[in-house]
Amino acid sequence: MSALKVPVEPLTRAAFVPFGDVIETDGSAHYTINQGHAERFHDLARIDVQEAGGKPLINIFRATPWPNPVCIAAMERHPLSSQAFVPLSTTPFLVVVAAPTDALRPEHLRAFVTSRRQGVNYARGVWHHALLALEQQSDFLIVDRGGAEPNCDEVFFGRDEIILDYPVKQQ
Amino acid sequence: MSALKVPVEPLTRAAFVPFGDVIETDGSAHYTINQGHAERFHDLARIDVQEAGGKPLINIFRATPWPNPVCIAAMERHPLSSQAFVPLSTTPFLVVVAAPTDALRPEHLRAFVTSRRQGVNYARGVWHHALLALEQQSDFLIVDRGGAEPNCDEVFFGRDEIILDYPVKQQ
Repeated sequence: MSALKVPVEPLTRAAFVPFGDVIETDGSAHYTINQGHAERFHDLARIDVQEAGGKPLINIFRATPWPNPVCIAAMERHPLSSQAFVPLSTTPFLVVVAAPTDALRPEHLRAFVTSRRQGVNYARGVWHHALLALEQQSDFLIVDRGGAEPNCDEVFFGRDEIILDYPVKQQ
Repeated sequence: MSALKVPVEPLTRAAFVPFGDVIETDGSAHYTINQGHAERFHDLARIDVQEAGGKPLINIFRATPWPNPVCIAAMERHPLSSQAFVPLSTTPFLVVVAAPTDALRPEHLRAFVTSRRQGVNYARGVWHHALLALEQQSDFLIVDRGGAEPNCDEVFFGRDEIILDYPVKQQ
């Protein structure tokens, strides 16, 4: 069986509506603060972490680029919370998602590549791949949920069943 | 009356204990995730935004450098919540703080300059100056509280009463 090749689209707010928020200044409401010394781009993501006594966490993920081609061997979802990823550099990354379902199949997957100025916030229950950094090791700020309850489901696919149609540059 | 000159120290976790958290990977607990493709530096700040029905917000502040010398004309505090600032670039910034008090005076102020890899989280009630970006216009991710309740107190000082002892490079 040949692998399913998932096309990789540029990330846009419109395309990402079923999956959560694109965190970016372009096109976002903003207003001036600090006596003119800053613009506040306000409330850029629905941070949904308080279910069942959860609390917001801030973390940094230091991500190493994935090997080429990118095989999608597993997807995960957080049934209790959203999870936001914002790059702390201008390195782009790949975003692989599927809308909430209890019967995830390869053909449900959508893949996006960020600009150098975008983060994402996966809505609760949205299937997503682990962080797929590009180009170089890079840091991301993560806002997710702290709490003792199990909050990660995983689905696994066959080896070489799904690959991304994206030419990842080698190191 | 001559201005009070506040010395500017390098930001360290130890020095910042009375004011909140330094958000950085150096010295932070971490563990491997994503089949070895990422390190998770876990729970780097006490995000305290849920008082009185508050919810966490993610915002981006686009900050313009302050004029030189930096005069501290006002300080603010958020009585209901913490507020985190993480740079989305490697531009350093200045942090001016004072421990919680209802009688803030100029001599209470402490000032720090970040490395290129540090953010801060002001604890609830900690006095702080507005964002003081250095070098160039730069973006910061802010995690603070959404809610209708008043949540910002300000104290004002005289013109040229307090300046930072820091040589800000001109644009």
